[in-house]
Amino acid sequence: MQGLMQDWPLLIHRIIDHAATQHGSREVVSRSLEGPIHRTDYATVRQRALRGAKRLAREGIKPGDRVATMAWNSWRHLEAWYAIAGVGAIYHTINPRLFAEQIVWIVNHAEDRLLMLDACFVPLVEKLAPALASIERYIILTDAAHMPQTSLRNAVAYEDWLAEADDDFVWAAVDERAAAGLCYTSGTTGNPKGVLYTHRSNVLHAMQVCMTGSIGPSANDSVLCVVPMFHANAWALPFALPMCGAKMVMPGSRLDGASVYDLIEAEGVTHSAGVPTVWLMLLDYMTTNAKKPSTLRQVAVGGAACPRAMIVRFERDFGVDVFHAWGMTESSPVGTTGTIKPAVGKLEGESLYDQKAKQGSAPFGVEMIITSDDGVRLPWDGATVGRLKVRGPCIAAGYYRQETQILDAEGFFDTGDIAAIEADGTMRITDRAKDVIKSGGEWISSIEIENLAMSHPDVAEAAVIGVPHEKWTERPLLAVVPARGSARDPAGLLRFFEGRIAKWWIPGDVQYLEEIPHTAAGKINKVRLREIFRDYRLPDDGV
Amino acid sequence: MQGLMQDWPLLIHRIIDHAATQHGSREVVSRSLEGPIHRTDYATVRQRALRGAKRLAREGIKPGDRVATMAWNSWRHLEAWYAIAGVGAIYHTINPRLFAEQIVWIVNHAEDRLLMLDACFVPLVEKLAPALASIERYIILTDAAHMPQTSLRNAVAYEDWLAEADDDFVWAAVDERAAAGLCYTSGTTGNPKGVLYTHRSNVLHAMQVCMTGSIGPSANDSVLCVVPMFHANAWALPFALPMCGAKMVMPGSRLDGASVYDLIEAEGVTHSAGVPTVWLMLLDYMTTNAKKPSTLRQVAVGGAACPRAMIVRFERDFGVDVFHAWGMTESSPVGTTGTIKPAVGKLEGESLYDQKAKQGSAPFGVEMIITSDDGVRLPWDGATVGRLKVRGPCIAAGYYRQETQILDAEGFFDTGDIAAIEADGTMRITDRAKDVIKSGGEWISSIEIENLAMSHPDVAEAAVIGVPHEKWTERPLLAVVPARGSARDPAGLLRFFEGRIAKWWIPGDVQYLEEIPHTAAGKINKVRLREIFRDYRLPDDGV
Repeated sequence: MQGLMQDWPLLIHRIIDHAATQHGSREVVSRSLEGPIHRTDYATVRQRALRGAKRLAREGIKPGDRVATMAWNSWRHLEAWYAIAGVGAIYHTINPRLFAEQIVWIVNHAEDRLLMLDACFVPLVEKLAPALASIERYIILTDAAHMPQTSLRNAVAYEDWLAEADDDFVWAAVDERAAAGLCYTSGTTGNPKGVLYTHRSNVLHAMQVCMTGSIGPSANDSVLCVVPMFHANAWALPFALPMCGAKMVMPGSRLDGASVYDLIEAEGVTHSAGVPTVWLMLLDYMTTNAKKPSTLRQVAVGGAACPRAMIVRFERDFGVDVFHAWGMTESSPVGTTGTIKPAVGKLEGESLYDQKAKQGSAPFGVEMIITSDDGVRLPWDGATVGRLKVRGPCIAAGYYRQETQILDAEGFFDTGDIAAIEADGTMRITDRAKDVIKSGGEWISSIEIENLAMSHPDVAEAAVIGVPHEKWTERPLLAVVPARGSARDPAGLLRFFEGRIAKWWIPGDVQYLEEIPHTAAGKINKVRLREIFRDYRLPDDGV
Repeated sequence: MQGLMQDWPLLIHRIIDHAATQHGSREVVSRSLEGPIHRTDYATVRQRALRGAKRLAREGIKPGDRVATMAWNSWRHLEAWYAIAGVGAIYHTINPRLFAEQIVWIVNHAEDRLLMLDACFVPLVEKLAPALASIERYIILTDAAHMPQTSLRNAVAYEDWLAEADDDFVWAAVDERAAAGLCYTSGTTGNPKGVLYTHRSNVLHAMQVCMTGSIGPSANDSVLCVVPMFHANAWALPFALPMCGAKMVMPGSRLDGASVYDLIEAEGVTHSAGVPTVWLMLLDYMTTNAKKPSTLRQVAVGGAACPRAMIVRFERDFGVDVFHAWGMTESSPVGTTGTIKPAVGKLEGESLYDQKAKQGSAPFGVEMIITSDDGVRLPWDGATVGRLKVRGPCIAAGYYRQETQILDAEGFFDTGDIAAIEADGTMRITDRAKDVIKSGGEWISSIEIENLAMSHPDVAEAAVIGVPHEKWTERPLLAVVPARGSARDPAGLLRFFEGRIAKWWIPGDVQYLEEIPHTAAGKINKVRLREIFRDYRLPDDGV
């Protein structure tokens, strides 16, 4: 028997409608690419998104069409998302840091009809444009005054283009399971894979993120969206912040420590979210310049494991609560968050930092299991590690235009991460499956060694890979970027591990690098690192 | 184009699955009807709900069947809800305070197959049983030791009945729009009307309630469910608390001030939710006995307008934050909540209490409008009052087995409340449409006069109705229950209103009563009050 509740599909445009009516005067503040701070509010964002949707419809964009964006976080990018989804089309975010050939590949694979891009990316895109066959028009996210000279096909300044429509438009009435967003994962191997979000998944995911225990922004918070909108939906913030009415602060392209710090202070930022790399720059800036944040209460850290040493610095030196999050493009992306649950008892100091270094618990709507390689479920005892698999309404079921079946018989998606889960549901990532070091038939966690290494004062960044070993199959090699002005003391560094991890986990050697290679998403590029050390042999080829 | 996210229907049983895996050891504490405090946890609640579902299936209960409960808040009642929904059937909560003939009417209208009831309701139900034709079996929510002698058909003690099944059961895979719960509104006129909740509406509503800005319980809170489960889903707490992992404290049948206070202190309760009547008893108990709550931080007040004087007492005298909520059975029920939004600026003291006395803002998923009697939308200026209408996924679209169309052309449901909405979206109920006093062609808000009267020290409770007047059509009459030991000074009380409300709103007279009649849901029964004063004439029949 069907129930008798209203049919009210979960559609993205309803979020901005809600923000405009319930939080209409709440500010959206952006550091514009042109320099000055730009201020608008949710009511105006909605009006302009309606105009954008009407203008897109006049451009011939129909439900299901893909419209690409290549842009930093700004009010215009935000309007563009709601306009595209609001006409029933699909916003396709492109990471400008991808290799040129990857960008070309995904635009062609997605068959994007329009590309909306920041003026700063015009030179890059002009080089690729001859290969981008499907793009009918380039819309530069700027006004006439800042419009660059460009050869891009039918190029137009966003403000001019938008001015050709009014806001008398009715959002497209699409099914809640219609595609709304497209984001390709930037893997280190193989072609990118397109995750195709639905209106429903984005709305449910934003609700999850607004729940207590998750990032949980509120109407009284000011939130700095450090994480770029081209990086896995900017962790839902462009949906969650209007949903709850938080002030939205967008950093544009300037993510250096000084710029981020200044924006936090100027806009009374209370919460932020981003990858470790950005936080490292902020921490170093504040330390070097003896600055303290005056309003910042919490940072969510994800995208890559947050080094324990970073948690300690934020909390002990700056009084900022660190909130560890785990997820991936395929999980919308927020999977788990590091709320400290009462089951662990009252934690303080080191034991609290230990707990916060774990990736945390799943919210309602994310089911987790760990299994052996052959799919047998493993116990939640905090020690047993296995393949982390997830299931839920905001988890990918497949990739765009790929036939590959990516779910197991029970509907779980294999994250490619290796994790342990404690009895209380707290999850700890120990590795990427492809980065696990297999030594003497056992697994060694590269992430745990990296975290430990990064807590040493001589280490700026660390990465661990497995290198071949005759007797043990593989042994860990520690690659280190030394901290500025520190001594190079490999033996001392290795002694530091004694008593802190199992003896057989201690790396077989330390190699110093000027920098550690990263992927376009800011993660350590271990494929590249393994190439660098392809011909390397451990000094004694032994333990 | 359909997106590619997982198909994961929003089903109620997934909430208790989540609680069992992520918050399994979190306590569910009940004051049992037998007296002692009973302790269990979410993992055990789930196991026993699985057994209950299996046992219901063996009883022949099929998806869509109605299973009634008539019970106070307890772990067994909680298990019963999940068991019933988990076998695909519909939990139908019956308010034991309804008139006998109403109970008979709704059981027959719902065609309930089973009735699960507390032992204390056996004498009541035995009297009605001959008229309850559809009930095949009565399950008494107790164990063999406390099982009363009863003539009820096939009566069995819940624990004995449950022991006949194990927990090896797979939850029914129903559609998320399948009916899951049934609750009849106890109107003061006409037959009760059945609101038929879906799995989807209950899950979405629980997510709304767990969001910041709403009641927003968290894993670290201990929440006392004062509001009964037979009262509009207990404001979603039986779903929201397992969803977020909060400790759940159930008061059983004892809602007097001393019992509620003791439970708050014994269980470290931080949050609670209930109707004003219960809070009045708690406040009076604490005042009389010079007690203070040591852990209680917030009470949500709803079900009837929270008198401003109550907000002041809680906040000023006891340091407890009051959170006003508005809703109805048809809205699942939480419609708006009284978060103070930044748009109103920094409020303190009296201006803060004024703001909190309003019913608050709608969360994402509740759309509000106010209209004139003929459906024209009215402005959000804080002054214009009109019919409050709502739309959303957790709002009723119709009543069970009634053909009546209850939505307007745009899909809005008329709440029967009269309200004003401010530009920032804050809503203030001024009256029930049927209680509005029409005086000289204008409307007078009975609720505002009642609130003001209740802030007078001589007034324990107040109610205002319109009485006929030759010149002005209607004039307000103030009925008052005097505060203990206070003087009866009608003229002084009326002088109190001067300068506080418009002169023509000041009641034409004061009448003292021993008590003010209430409905089964605890609201002022104005139909009954008008009967009491049917032959009453104002002293001067004038202003």
